[in-house]
Formats: sequence, C-alpha cells, structure tokens
Amino acid sequence: MTIPYHTPLSADQQRSLGIETPQPLAMADRVRFSELDTLNHVNNSRYMEWFERMRVRYSQECGISTYGGEGAAPRIVIRSGEIHYRQEMVMDEDYVATCGCTAFRNTSYTLRQEIWSGGTIRCTFDCVLVLLYPDGSGRRMPIPDAVRERFVAVDGATPA
Amino acid sequence: MTIPYHTPLSADQQRSLGIETPQPLAMADRVRFSELDTLNHVNNSRYMEWFERMRVRYSQECGISTYGGEGAAPRIVIRSGEIHYRQEMVMDEDYVATCGCTAFRNTSYTLRQEIWSGGTIRCTFDCVLVLLYPDGSGRRMPIPDAVRERFVAVDGATPA
Amino acid sequence: MTIPYHTPLSADQQRSLGIETPQPLAMADRVRFSELDTLNHVNNSRYMEWFERMRVRYSQECGISTYGGEGAAPRIVIRSGEIHYRQEMVMDEDYVATCGCTAFRNTSYTLRQEIWSGGTIRCTFDCVLVLLYPDGSGRRMPIPDAVRERFVAVDGATPA
Amino acid sequence: MTIPYHTPLSADQQRSLGIETPQPLAMADRVRFSELDTLNHVNNSRYMEWFERMRVRYSQECGISTYGGEGAAPRIVIRSGEIHYRQEMVMDEDYVATCGCTAFRNTSYTLRQEIWSGGTIRCTFDCVLVLLYPDGSGRRMPIPDAVRERFVAVDGATPA
Repeated sequence: MTIPYHTPLSADQQRSLGIETPQPLAMADRVRFSELDTLNHVNNSRYMEWFERMRVRYSQECGISTYGGEGAAPRIVIRSGEIHYRQEMVMDEDYVATCGCTAFRNTSYTLRQEIWSGGTIRCTFDCVLVLLYPDGSGRRMPIPDAVRERFVAVDGATPA
Repeated sequence: MTIPYHTPLSADQQRSLGIETPQPLAMADRVRFSELDTLNHVNNSRYMEWFERMRVRYSQECGISTYGGEGAAPRIVIRSGEIHYRQEMVMDEDYVATCGCTAFRNTSYTLRQEIWSGGTIRCTFDCVLVLLYPDGSGRRMPIPDAVRERFVAVDGATPA
Repeated sequence: MTIPYHTPLSADQQRSLGIETPQPLAMADRVRFSELDTLNHVNNSRYMEWFERMRVRYSQECGISTYGGEGAAPRIVIRSGEIHYRQEMVMDEDYVATCGCTAFRNTSYTLRQEIWSGGTIRCTFDCVLVLLYPDGSGRRMPIPDAVRERFVAVDGATPA
Repeated sequence: MTIPYHTPLSADQQRSLGIETPQPLAMADRVRFSELDTLNHVNNSRYMEWFERMRVRYSQECGISTYGGEGAAPRIVIRSGEIHYRQEMVMDEDYVATCGCTAFRNTSYTLRQEIWSGGTIRCTFDCVLVLLYPDGSGRRMPIPDAVRERFVAVDGATPA
C-alpha cells in the first residue's frame, strides 16, 4: 500500500495502517538518517520533534492558533507531559504521528499523541497545554467556545 | 562568578549557583543559537538532549555503562518519563543540568533530572530506565550490586 | 498535483515539479517546524541534513555502500563541499532534494546536489567524497568498476 | 590546562591551545552526545551549527547586528561557503571555533571560520555574507563605515 505522507489520514486510512483507534489528526512520515543516534535507533529527543510538529498542525486545525486573527491568537505553552517509549525505531521506517484532545478545563487542555509503525505503537505522549493572552502578561486565556465545542464534537474530549 | 562549564560541580558550587538541593551529578553549559525556535526560546525537544547528555555521563560515573567491560556492559533503555516545563529559556543563558537516582528495583531505576538557571528551576524530568543484557535477547539484567550500593550511598536512592 | 514523497522521482516527475535538468536521484519532502530558526526560515544547517540523507540513499542505489557485502563495504568520507544558498525556505514548503555524480577519479568522486521548491532552485551543494578501505587504516580504496560504469552510464559523469 | 569555555579567547590563550594563527574571535566548547551520528563521529551538519553560533556572536561584537538600533539593523544573509572536513571528531572532545573577516566589498564580506582540537585543525568554512536593508525589500545595504574600519583594524581584512 502507498502511504500518503504529510497529509491528514482518514479514519479508514489509519485503520488500514494498523492504528486500532483512529485519532483526530494523524499524518505519516518516514525516519531520516539525521534522526538516528550512535545505536542506529531514532534518538529519544526526535519523538518530541515529531509530536511538536503534530501539535502545531493540530493547533491550526482546531482553530486555536488562528483564533482572533494575527496578533490576537493565544500563546500556547506546554506545561508538562508523560512519555512512554514502547519500541525502538530504525532507518527508513514509515510511521504515523497522531494528536487529539482527551480532556480540557477553562484555560488548559490535555493532548494524547502516539507514534505507530508497522501496526504497533512505538511511543506515546500525554501532555498538558495552557493558553496565555498574547499580550505577554502571562495571564491565562480561556479556551474559545468554538474550540471547546470542537474538542467535544470531533475529538470526544471530556470537559473537567 | 565564573561558572566552570562541562565539569561536575561540587555541592558547594551547586548551592552558589542557586540549586537548593545539590544533586549527585550537575554540570553547567550555555544556551546556543541552534537550540532556539521561532519564538526565540529554547525548543522543548532540546531539554531532552541536555538530559540525555547528563544520563550518558551519569551512567559512566555510577559504573553502569562500563560494567563488565567492553561488550559485556548492559544496554540502558529509557522506558518512560514525566517532564515539567517551568520557565522558558533564552539565548546565551547559563544553566546547570543535573542527574541523580531516586529509587530502584531489581532491573530498573528512576532518575531525577533538573535544569536550573539564574537560581530558578526551569525544567524537570523524572524517568525510568531498564537494564538489558547486551546479547540482544531483550532479557532484563539485574542492576549490579556495586551500582545498587552506590545508588544508596551516593544518591540516597530508595530500593523498592 | 500530488507529490509522491520519500520515493525516487522519474525524470518526467522531476520536470513536472519544475526541475529543469532531471537528476539521477531526486526525492520530495516537506519543511518541518523543527527545521525553522528564529527568523521563521529553514536553518542553514538543515540543508546539510537533507543533502546527507540523499547521499546515504544514493550510495545504496549506486552500489557503493553495499559493495563487497557486510563489513567489506568502503567507508565513504566527505572531504569538502561548496554550498550556495539561493532563496530562503519556510514552513510546510514542499521541496525536492537531488543527488548525482558529475566527475570521478581513482578513489574520489564529485556529487552535485540541489534543493528545488516551487520551480526555483533554493540551495546547491557540490561536494567531493573519498572511499577508504573498511579496515580503519585510512588507506584510500579505488572506486569499484561497476560503480565507475554506473557513474558514466546513468549519471553522465566524467572520469578525470 | 583549564579551558575557559563559552568566552572569547585571547591571542595567547589561542596559541596555548595550538591555534597557529590566532583569530579575531575564538571560543571553546565540547562535543556532546547529541552531535554524534551512527559512526560515533560528530555529524557533518553540526559543524554548521558551531560556525553559525560564532557568526551570531561575531556579528554582535563587530557591530553589524546592532547597527542602527532595534529594527534598523541590517539583515545578514549567508550566500555561499566552502567547507573542508580535515579530521573527524568524537565524543567529549574539547574544541575551539573561530571567526574573522578576511575581505569585504561594498555590501558583502568574507568570513574565515575554523575548528581546532588537540592542536590540529578539523574543519574550515570560508563563507560570503551579504547585508540587506531591514525593510524586507531585499535591497543590499552598504557595510557601515565603523564596521569596515574594524574589519581592517582588528581582523586585518582586505577591502576589494
């Protein structure tokens, strides 16, 4: 099967690639030489880059990073995360990186991120992000209503 | 005060740099241009590189990565970790990265890692590592007695 | 048009993507967030990673890195290179990276590498590589005949 | 001898570290684990990060990147460069990275950059940079007189 890289995958495409529970956002890519370390495995820090790339895209798609227009959009800050490394990855492996919201509060939300390859899960990252007003004051900004509604309707997230 | 970079810091040196509770291993370095992202802050994935560098050094110092000599040393695999981002870091900031063992079991151990700068803590990472036999079988290897003893005597770790 | 990422592109595919003179090896990919620097442009050092990835693939395809089988293949060392930055690149741009041999001597060869995006050339790298025997002696190894023939027949390279 | 990392080295300090001809700017650092590739050598792309870091510092010290104050300083763009890899580098090696101007024209200048370790030169990069007005027009900006004078007086550069 030809994998459509760099493009959001449908639920059916995700299932065909072995992802048991399709995620709100999933995109495929391939391991590069520059991501390997001295053991010929993908270095642990690189998963963080893959996850971050998906969060940037997810923030655009769910409307957070574009909310209010240029200069008015909230600053998104990652506060904490829990990472699990399940299985090593090697050169030229195709993989799928995912992102979806599992829960949210007034000014913060939790994302679940996964890396899948060859039908097995390789790494997971559950992280908490906080919205700040763009004025540099450091004050927390409430999640816009449209985003909250999307978290529930599309991602099946739980308000807390 | 002149910070001695790239060298293990004594408990007194750590305290003088504002680290409240000196850690078993602590080394200073400085933020580089290549570590900044589009927001002029140190990118989240870079902390993982800083922590990894300290774990490599720590594994040498506590005798794990040299145990049994060339070819016989255990493979050290990171299984999971919890990261907390406390405060952003910028260009040319001096910082101290730390590493120490807080708890251990038969074949796994927990490391506490911290980043300090200007007397405040910036990031923490608590991670669990597992020892594997070097034969590629994937079987878990017990922590050598000398290392267990050092975990208790030097780091004040708790056997579980 | 859908770009087939991570796959060698035919001469026709290359032309359709605006590459004036199709190259022996060309593969498409997309700019990632982690490749941007503080100016929101792809950092200069990242082009070197893109070029290296193509050289790794090219060395496999032309038979150098697999010559003689495991343990007998030559070590390939880059000696020098000339880089030209023509136009900046930004987030999410699709690009094509290329590699081909332009000239060779007894134990060294010259590769021409290019980055194309949106029908314009963005960066070029002309580099000289040397083959060494895999025994660690540092002695130079002649380019295998089969590889020399391929340099001429496929790449149109000139023996010097 | 204790190397003062992350600090401009005097001509005497440079000579004591084996640098034959002291350079206008030279700073010491140490190879990190994250800079190694699958061959346990510093990856070629990392030298570009080291050189860039020195250019950023050099641009501050010679007054280019601060000229005219915030918002008025020229944009500095690297146009081309020639790199020579002389000898591989490994984990934990101390090295010195340098930067100095060798020649300049009306709106462009040439920098010579070197990496030294253990008294031998490891890598060199000769690159051409161009100044642009900060207005985004892409028009070239003349090198300020104070900077030209410094290029001659401090670096011994040749106007062309």
